[in-house]
Amino acid sequence: MNFASDNVYGVHPKIMDAIVAANSGTDVSYLHDEGAKEFERHLSTIFEKDVKVFMVMNGTGANSLALSALVPSYGGIICHASAHINTDECNAPELFTGGAKLITLEGEGAKLTPTAISSRLKTFVHGEHGAKPLAISITNATELGTVYSVAEISALSTIAKSHGMKLHMDGARFANALVSLGCTPAEMTWKAGVDVLSFGGTKNGAMVLEAVVFFDTTLAEDFLYRRKRAGQLLSKGRYLSAQANAYLKDGLWLENAKRANGLAQILADGIRSSNAVRLSNPVQANEVFSIMPRKLFESLTQAGAHFYEWPVDGVGDDEVHTRCVLSWATPEKDIQQFLQLIKN
Amino acid sequence: MNFASDNVYGVHPKIMDAIVAANSGTDVSYLHDEGAKEFERHLSTIFEKDVKVFMVMNGTGANSLALSALVPSYGGIICHASAHINTDECNAPELFTGGAKLITLEGEGAKLTPTAISSRLKTFVHGEHGAKPLAISITNATELGTVYSVAEISALSTIAKSHGMKLHMDGARFANALVSLGCTPAEMTWKAGVDVLSFGGTKNGAMVLEAVVFFDTTLAEDFLYRRKRAGQLLSKGRYLSAQANAYLKDGLWLENAKRANGLAQILADGIRSSNAVRLSNPVQANEVFSIMPRKLFESLTQAGAHFYEWPVDGVGDDEVHTRCVLSWATPEKDIQQFLQLIKN
Amino acid sequence: MNFASDNVYGVHPKIMDAIVAANSGTDVSYLHDEGAKEFERHLSTIFEKDVKVFMVMNGTGANSLALSALVPSYGGIICHASAHINTDECNAPELFTGGAKLITLEGEGAKLTPTAISSRLKTFVHGEHGAKPLAISITNATELGTVYSVAEISALSTIAKSHGMKLHMDGARFANALVSLGCTPAEMTWKAGVDVLSFGGTKNGAMVLEAVVFFDTTLAEDFLYRRKRAGQLLSKGRYLSAQANAYLKDGLWLENAKRANGLAQILADGIRSSNAVRLSNPVQANEVFSIMPRKLFESLTQAGAHFYEWPVDGVGDDEVHTRCVLSWATPEKDIQQFLQLIKN
Amino acid sequence: MNFASDNVYGVHPKIMDAIVAANSGTDVSYLHDEGAKEFERHLSTIFEKDVKVFMVMNGTGANSLALSALVPSYGGIICHASAHINTDECNAPELFTGGAKLITLEGEGAKLTPTAISSRLKTFVHGEHGAKPLAISITNATELGTVYSVAEISALSTIAKSHGMKLHMDGARFANALVSLGCTPAEMTWKAGVDVLSFGGTKNGAMVLEAVVFFDTTLAEDFLYRRKRAGQLLSKGRYLSAQANAYLKDGLWLENAKRANGLAQILADGIRSSNAVRLSNPVQANEVFSIMPRKLFESLTQAGAHFYEWPVDGVGDDEVHTRCVLSWATPEKDIQQFLQLIKN
Repeated sequence: MNFASDNVYGVHPKIMDAIVAANSGTDVSYLHDEGAKEFERHLSTIFEKDVKVFMVMNGTGANSLALSALVPSYGGIICHASAHINTDECNAPELFTGGAKLITLEGEGAKLTPTAISSRLKTFVHGEHGAKPLAISITNATELGTVYSVAEISALSTIAKSHGMKLHMDGARFANALVSLGCTPAEMTWKAGVDVLSFGGTKNGAMVLEAVVFFDTTLAEDFLYRRKRAGQLLSKGRYLSAQANAYLKDGLWLENAKRANGLAQILADGIRSSNAVRLSNPVQANEVFSIMPRKLFESLTQAGAHFYEWPVDGVGDDEVHTRCVLSWATPEKDIQQFLQLIKN
Repeated sequence: MNFASDNVYGVHPKIMDAIVAANSGTDVSYLHDEGAKEFERHLSTIFEKDVKVFMVMNGTGANSLALSALVPSYGGIICHASAHINTDECNAPELFTGGAKLITLEGEGAKLTPTAISSRLKTFVHGEHGAKPLAISITNATELGTVYSVAEISALSTIAKSHGMKLHMDGARFANALVSLGCTPAEMTWKAGVDVLSFGGTKNGAMVLEAVVFFDTTLAEDFLYRRKRAGQLLSKGRYLSAQANAYLKDGLWLENAKRANGLAQILADGIRSSNAVRLSNPVQANEVFSIMPRKLFESLTQAGAHFYEWPVDGVGDDEVHTRCVLSWATPEKDIQQFLQLIKN
Repeated sequence: MNFASDNVYGVHPKIMDAIVAANSGTDVSYLHDEGAKEFERHLSTIFEKDVKVFMVMNGTGANSLALSALVPSYGGIICHASAHINTDECNAPELFTGGAKLITLEGEGAKLTPTAISSRLKTFVHGEHGAKPLAISITNATELGTVYSVAEISALSTIAKSHGMKLHMDGARFANALVSLGCTPAEMTWKAGVDVLSFGGTKNGAMVLEAVVFFDTTLAEDFLYRRKRAGQLLSKGRYLSAQANAYLKDGLWLENAKRANGLAQILADGIRSSNAVRLSNPVQANEVFSIMPRKLFESLTQAGAHFYEWPVDGVGDDEVHTRCVLSWATPEKDIQQFLQLIKN
Repeated sequence: MNFASDNVYGVHPKIMDAIVAANSGTDVSYLHDEGAKEFERHLSTIFEKDVKVFMVMNGTGANSLALSALVPSYGGIICHASAHINTDECNAPELFTGGAKLITLEGEGAKLTPTAISSRLKTFVHGEHGAKPLAISITNATELGTVYSVAEISALSTIAKSHGMKLHMDGARFANALVSLGCTPAEMTWKAGVDVLSFGGTKNGAMVLEAVVFFDTTLAEDFLYRRKRAGQLLSKGRYLSAQANAYLKDGLWLENAKRANGLAQILADGIRSSNAVRLSNPVQANEVFSIMPRKLFESLTQAGAHFYEWPVDGVGDDEVHTRCVLSWATPEKDIQQFLQLIKN
């Protein structure tokens, strides 16, 4: 029973096969290979737009580098206080942007709202004495397993544009959000005003697969330099390309996300019908957040369930706020076992 | 009627005289002059401890450089959301520290509390995935004109030490806080656990006078390099030294602060006895924060009063939260005129 | 005929097998897996010393991060002008160190000498007005295919220590240098005074395998934070560990390096016996540098040989300085074909 | 006899008078005062072009900030190895640019040549693997007291433009170069292709006076943020403005420079007629570099002459390469005394 993270699971067999298949002969290095170009073309088709795509080494690299293309060193990036870029990437955004400031806001379900942003922007009355807010960064699906709707994204884009700010989407779990929304990739991104996307694949079945996708391709200027300078360029790039193309092939990425999201619903349903545990957030992607008695948490852990306490305000000392993450590879029986343990 | 800031007023005549007096013959440059050493000795006497003193170019430089000596690039600095380092130094702290993260907390009167800090530290459960909190920075007097008591400073120091963090004090208005507390400089700083102080003189009568004062002198290692690298070293240092020594001479710094604080009390008393305006924070140094009808704010401004709207949450649209700063040089009659205008 | 780089070749079958074998069940993420510990233990045995090992994403990451642990932002790093950190990592060393300065020197065979270093250090007479030289970085095998002897390394370490500087070795081709020297790993590193090593495996048969190895383990403090902050931490770490352990197993790493070095000797011998081409540097590892008529270079390229022009001073316009890199996977017949083409 | 630097001398009486005169009443802070605007207008007249002017705290700030507006973090800045930005500003250029790389070249008289630059640019064949050269920085007058002619500046600008690079001039001794050339300020700068100038006044009679002057004003966008973020903004800006305007008034800046340059010629003439000392560089501004027996250097020092040994290659152990700097305030009798001591 491992619900600790989607990255405790391995690589999808089809992706592993592609890696192995790539292992013959020579190929040009540093992502100048044909596979990399194919990936860019495929994403352009998927997004119904000529996008610029840069594969990088991990999600921290994707987010921090994407932001470095949007915001100068004296800039500010508005994000939710619980955003991955604020809580789980150490100071990488500050490093890669040359010292830009994360301007953190609260908001239910780890979501930013136009109201909260407008209110915060009103305090920037000192001109150059404060950071210059130049980007909004949202995570979709969010860090609390919720999903921004297309309308919500559009509303954030509107406020961004009206203040000369760019909009970045951290899509470490992009596929999970996409299949949850049931819209097209274009609708969820550039049609709703997203300028740059961190497109994640590692959590959804790949080994090493994250890419920065530019919808506003003018922002991609010199991004090759940014990627190299940040140590985010792999020499034997063909192995990234192989993963990338296998990930998209025949909709594997969507299939994996659907399975993970479906498992989350199974777990959520089980929790809803339990007395001991209550959901703390809507379950809209592949993560389930809930509050349970500390004793139960401990006994579940003892029984071999791996999942994290996820500290938030407003939870009593005898209770625990927890996170369970479901993967395309999570065995359904593990969920049943977990629910059974809760019941007992 | 100029209450916009303490830096809209000029240089105290005694300090200007010292600058003029320094203007003869040659002197060694880059703060290797005798005057700089005299200043360090005098501060060591004042603080009852051998301190290391580095004059710099301004408050932003003092704070950001001081923090760079306390916190590595992957570190976190706990401060109040309204701290000058967070709101009024653009991204200088991020720049000079190489990208450390400001971890902002709320708190009444712009003050940090041990409770708020403890609560926030509990969320740092991911190890290297988050910033490593390594310093607390407080401003005394605060950005809302309140003053941390010695007991409050000690309590913050206790929590800092127990978590391996250092304690920095932004003393842009150090003298104002000191005369408000009525304690000794030592009691307000290192005896209460402060490791490094930004000692400000510009707001209190000097032209260019800020210094980083190390109580824990081991932290000062290589600080000469830090200061130079950050562009905070003046070549003709003798003119800083002249100011510094005149500032301390015969207690001029305390005298100036006392006058400014006294004027703030006069203004506060006047406001207290008015019906139209109410104080929003205790007046403990040389700043007066109050809430008034927007119409009154506009008519006062029209009548020639210079003071700032100071946006905070929870003030209605027809009201304005304002700041008035009093200087050693503010004419008392300006305050009377201001109060008279409010009365009418 | 591909001699463009060692990274145009793929992954050794044994390493690929290990990657595939790692792909089952769940494992802890972020390099907290047992495989990572095993790798550290194995390297400790190999180096006859308890070392601290941190796997990272690539050579640029390894070098830049290693240097960030040695040198503060105001520091200087002495390296050869043609060092990979100076010419082929964009500004990653400057980024990861927070702006340290590379102090570049010339020297035959891309090697630093104590004499050149001593002479350069004499110009640092301005104290904090210049960078503070705090590290020497050498590459072994060098960027020109030569190898520092143990005595040469020791001599550089001596001058480093006498000036309070640390010694870093970029070992992107560590195995090639090691088998060339025929000494022990310990003799080539810490016994000769090396403090930190970038241990490379990608060029020598792995897919993604670079590690920072600390011999002076006190320097490794908080390196977990550095690695995370720099975007050099892979979530699904088990796939790095699998490569790492397969790389060391049964001396595969040495075997690969021996084969590559041997091929370089075959190519060098062929060139020596040719009239048209002359070696420009001793061939001591797996790279062969030579000077040939531009016409020959073009005809070889035309004939399908992939290898790079490598600009250096002092080569006439009608000649080309070239680099050929040999890999454990280079077919020997390609070399024979290449030499045959030169002969004709 | 103090020839150590131009900054060991004080402030010109007219400038000090202006500082004192500025000390009455209130004024807006942070360089929004009328005096700052007047300075910009005056420089626009002097340069025959609408320039953007930003006063900063010192030369290191001026140079590093100017470069930060020209070059991104992944960029390269071509400069002479002995450029002040490389040897005397610690790592400030690296800090303020976010880690750009200084690409240093040699050249007689501390001057860059188009040939040396062209040759160096040819090695940038790896695309993003190296820094992206985006600026050339020259110092005029140079660090060896020579002066680039208008033709030389134009030639460097031509190569800069043809490679998409900007041209920066460090004018810490701008006035000295200008009166040496006898051309107009426009001819020496933007008409010759200079994009940004660090305009220095501190060495030439001011207390704190350096400004970044943009001829290409599109480069000045958001420079207010850059200046604030770098700690280069003085709150009581009126005292900088007062200096700036007094410096330009009635050509004081040119008068001071002429006197200093004239004194340098007197010293140079004296050296030329001596047997013991020989000039090492043409004397074209206010600095005199010469080589003398170490014994003489020591006896001059003993006799009270302050001047620096200036290490360069190619000077024997029994000789010393020295620098003497002349100021508008250097007493001529000190020069005669110095020459007399040499003669004896």
